Amino acid sequence: MNRKTQRILGIDPGSRITGFGIIDVCGRDYQYVASGCIKTIPADELAGRIGVICENIREIIELYRPNQAAVEQVFVNVNPAATLMLGQARGAALAALVMRGLPVYEYTALQVKQAVVGKGKAAKEQVQHMVVQMLGLSGTPQADAADGLAVALTHALRNHSLAYKLNADGMQIKGGRFQR
Amino acid sequence: MNRKTQRILGIDPGSRITGFGIIDVCGRDYQYVASGCIKTIPADELAGRIGVICENIREIIELYRPNQAAVEQVFVNVNPAATLMLGQARGAALAALVMRGLPVYEYTALQVKQAVVGKGKAAKEQVQHMVVQMLGLSGTPQADAADGLAVALTHALRNHSLAYKLNADGMQIKGGRFQR
Repeated sequence: MNRKTQRILGIDPGSRITGFGIIDVCGRDYQYVASGCIKTIPADELAGRIGVICENIREIIELYRPNQAAVEQVFVNVNPAATLMLGQARGAALAALVMRGLPVYEYTALQVKQAVVGKGKAAKEQVQHMVVQMLGLSGTPQADAADGLAVALTHALRNHSLAYKLNADGMQIKGGRFQR
Repeated sequence: MNRKTQRILGIDPGSRITGFGIIDVCGRDYQYVASGCIKTIPADELAGRIGVICENIREIIELYRPNQAAVEQVFVNVNPAATLMLGQARGAALAALVMRGLPVYEYTALQVKQAVVGKGKAAKEQVQHMVVQMLGLSGTPQADAADGLAVALTHALRNHSLAYKLNADGMQIKGGRFQR
């Protein structure tokens, strides 16, 4: 990972499965690093499930050392108990990222689909397909892992667009500030 | 704090205010240690608010070194967005406790009111009043801080009852196991 490379950890939180994907970004070049799923057992008590999510995210951060995190904003469910559980899982994932000092960016499912597939109403399979294409993968990652990679790619694409736009305006980001 | 004293950190999670209360328990003797509120600014971005909750809980744990945590189970709101936000705040609080290795116990609002006031439909003021009485406080803590103390007291009372019941049956808990 050279100086200009950004390593992005993308997270798609869920009450049962939290998908994650890590990519390296250098300009317009995206490189797959890792992806997978953190699974919790619904029958387990909440503190245990929160512990599994936090512990796994801690391990992922220690192993891959990303320098940015992107987290998908979750759907508000019609079932209040399910919404609460999803919120708790997402809160735990965010806490694990924030407590490791990672800057966290949030994207809605609509933003992710628009960035990766080009339209907001894309099916899960289209997201998986585009993730495979963009990262040149030899196999198709599981849906939640693909969503983790998709949110990481969304962050990369949107940041690149921003940098590109600033550059067109004769500006660039240097040391976290806009400079001409 | 002698060997038999348990220090309990009680948490009442909320999307804007997270109440906390710490008590020392030795047999039937309860001692007030500290209480207060962790406030987040609704206009702030979520990662920042999660960070405030985690950072404050980390500081409270480092300062007071509780050995058990009790967390109130939250109400499921009719507004799904509010439920999601509450879930995220609660998930972050649980994550902060679990990541510091604290055993976490959960109690419903009904259990807390029944334990502290003696009936499940008690008003907030009754909970505050009983917390003041049970801990011999000279002033009335703010409602959220009182709820934090109430959930800590609930854990103490329920554990004491369990130990008492076991003792009556000729059993006791030793090294985490029931023994005759």
